[in-house]
Amino acid sequence: MILDAKRADIGNTNAGYVDAAFGFLGADAITVHPYLGAEALQPFLARAEKGVIVLCRTSNPGAGEFQDLSVNGEPLYRFVARRVASEWNKNGNCSLVVGATYPDELREVRGLVGDMPILIPGIGAQGGDVEKTVSAGKDSHGQGMIINSSRGIIFASKDADFAEAARRETEKLHNLINQFRK
Amino acid sequence: MILDAKRADIGNTNAGYVDAAFGFLGADAITVHPYLGAEALQPFLARAEKGVIVLCRTSNPGAGEFQDLSVNGEPLYRFVARRVASEWNKNGNCSLVVGATYPDELREVRGLVGDMPILIPGIGAQGGDVEKTVSAGKDSHGQGMIINSSRGIIFASKDADFAEAARRETEKLHNLINQFRK
Repeated sequence: MILDAKRADIGNTNAGYVDAAFGFLGADAITVHPYLGAEALQPFLARAEKGVIVLCRTSNPGAGEFQDLSVNGEPLYRFVARRVASEWNKNGNCSLVVGATYPDELREVRGLVGDMPILIPGIGAQGGDVEKTVSAGKDSHGQGMIINSSRGIIFASKDADFAEAARRETEKLHNLINQFRK
Repeated sequence: MILDAKRADIGNTNAGYVDAAFGFLGADAITVHPYLGAEALQPFLARAEKGVIVLCRTSNPGAGEFQDLSVNGEPLYRFVARRVASEWNKNGNCSLVVGATYPDELREVRGLVGDMPILIPGIGAQGGDVEKTVSAGKDSHGQGMIINSSRGIIFASKDADFAEAARRETEKLHNLINQFRK
């Protein structure tokens, strides 16, 4: 279970979030903001058996306001991707968030991080394209993507058939993804 | 009441945080991460009667990993400060977080944002100096600072006198701040 809670505070408070997320809630992984740096995120990063999924290029339309800022000649989201892959991932428990709404940036990030798993929101209600996403996001084994659709599935129907509709949309997306992985 | 929850998600989810923070919990202000940009934070920013306090230069030792990155010749935290002051603050409801542990950076940010209020954590357990903080952080009226000590006050005593000890530390800090404001 991935807790998409987008947390990040100073270390002392993050230790509390670790207890809440991994202990109380039993989550397997959590999404975090990068802004406070690895030092603050140590309580998350130190949990080698848990996933730490760092926001890199988010799916929202205005993601570029800071994430595209040029840092030493490259956009900040690329700097974040390389930093996480090269320095934060000592326990092999890191992942990145890159939105399906930005397939070009997704392809760039995949090129920077090898086979690190990437969490990809933005399919469904946000309008991301499945074929472009899989083409840009797959790793060297045609895998390594956690592709998420939330509203497109849980709100597939507002009527009494909501459960069947959600299952139908889930299977449809599942099959589409596998079709394009080949 | 300030909810130091350091939130920030896509707009649709932030609308839910707005309901939870300002509605259910009745908070007057909330701290937010800047990474997703103003477009995502609109549900917060649109609430003109509530405070939106944006992380700028955080108090933790590793704050500089991203916040000091050079963006167009200036560190990212300065870019965030100017952006919030010049573009995000249309409703006059914005503020910034700058740690007391970084008085030089605090002075720089004060120089960039005029009399915008600044939330200043890092006094007390984190080691920030009150005199340096007030000197660097005060606005043109000797005000404009929300100086926070959490652990230094709530954990002033672990014995039965915890309430008296907390009051004593609060009054001590209050008096120190006012002494240096003059």
